Amino acid sequence: MTFKVPVGVSARHIHLAQEHVERLFGPGAELTVFKPLSQPGQYAANETVEVTGPKGSFGKVRILGPVRKRTQLEVSRTDAFTLGINPPVRESGDIAGSAGITIKGPAGEIAIEEGVIVAARHIHFHTSDAERMGIADKQRLSVRLHGERGVILENVIARVSPEFALDMHIDTDEANAAGAKTGDEAEIIG
Amino acid sequence: MTFKVPVGVSARHIHLAQEHVERLFGPGAELTVFKPLSQPGQYAANETVEVTGPKGSFGKVRILGPVRKRTQLEVSRTDAFTLGINPPVRESGDIAGSAGITIKGPAGEIAIEEGVIVAARHIHFHTSDAERMGIADKQRLSVRLHGERGVILENVIARVSPEFALDMHIDTDEANAAGAKTGDEAEIIG
Repeated sequence: MTFKVPVGVSARHIHLAQEHVERLFGPGAELTVFKPLSQPGQYAANETVEVTGPKGSFGKVRILGPVRKRTQLEVSRTDAFTLGINPPVRESGDIAGSAGITIKGPAGEIAIEEGVIVAARHIHFHTSDAERMGIADKQRLSVRLHGERGVILENVIARVSPEFALDMHIDTDEANAAGAKTGDEAEIIG
Repeated sequence: MTFKVPVGVSARHIHLAQEHVERLFGPGAELTVFKPLSQPGQYAANETVEVTGPKGSFGKVRILGPVRKRTQLEVSRTDAFTLGINPPVRESGDIAGSAGITIKGPAGEIAIEEGVIVAARHIHFHTSDAERMGIADKQRLSVRLHGERGVILENVIARVSPEFALDMHIDTDEANAAGAKTGDEAEIIG
C-alpha cells in the first residue's frame, strides 16, 4: 500500500535567533509576518537578509519565523557552490560543526561560525497521519515523485508530531532534478 | 542482476555551429582544445561565451567541441530560473521549439530563437556494453545513486553507439540532489 503526501519545495531561507534579529534589524526589532507556511505557527517574514560566503552572496534571503534558539541558514548544494562553502546535509536544528556564513541586515552584520546546512529531505507527519500510515518518527522512507524526470528519493526522514501538518520538504536541487513543484503529490512507497 | 556505470556530471555548457563560432569569435575562428571529454572525439574548448536571458546571465560558459550543425545550450533547471527562461527537458539535438537565449563572445553577439534545453538524463553505451547488459538504444532505465542523499533516477535514456564510451550523464541539479559527483558509480537496477 502506498500513501500520498503533498510536496513543499524549500528555497534557501534563514531562521534567526532573537539576538541576531536585533543585531541585523536594530535594538528591539521583531520579525513581522508576510505569510503563513504549511506548518502550523510557522511563517515567512517580511524581513530578508543578505548572506555572503567566500565566493559569492545572495540578497533577499527570506527569514522564516518565529525566532529560534539558534540561527540556521538552509541552502541547496547549488547555492553552497555559489557561496563557496561546504555545509553538511543535516536535519534542522543539528548544526554542530556545520558551515559558517556572514549575514547582513539593514542595521548590522554578523558572522556565524556554524549554522549553515543543506536540509535533509523529510516529511512532517501529524501524529494521526503517522498512525494511519504506520510510520514512526525518524523512520527512513522511500518516496516517488512522478513525471518525465521521475525519481525515487531514498532516506527521506519521517518527523512525527501533533504540531505538524502532512508535508514533504525537499530543496530546490531535489525539486529541479525531479521536475517537481510545491503542491505536487508524492507517493511513499517504502 | 545489476550493472555499474560511471557518473559524469554536466555543468551548463554550449555546443556551437561553425557559423556562430565565427560570429562570436571572428571570421575564420575555430575552437581550440582545452581537454578531452569522456566521449571519444568530444572536448572542452578553451573558448567560453556569456549567455543572457530576460532575468540574468552566466559568464564563462564552456563551449564543447567539435562544432555541431546547430547551436545548443544545455542548462540545469536552476540555471533556467536564474536566466528567466523555461527550456524543455530534451535529448541532445532535439531543439525544435525549445527556448531562446542571447550569446556573447569577444567578437560579437547572437540571439537564438531556439536551442536551449535541459538535457534529459542519459547513459552512453558502447555497443559492446549494451550487448553485455542486454540494453537497447532508447530504452528507459532506472538507475540508483547511493549515499546519504540516495536516489533512484527513472526514465534514464539509453543511447547506444560504437562511438560511445560507457558514461551516465546527469546535470548539476540531479547530481546535487543525489550528492553525486563525476567518477561516482551508479547502478542500473531496471
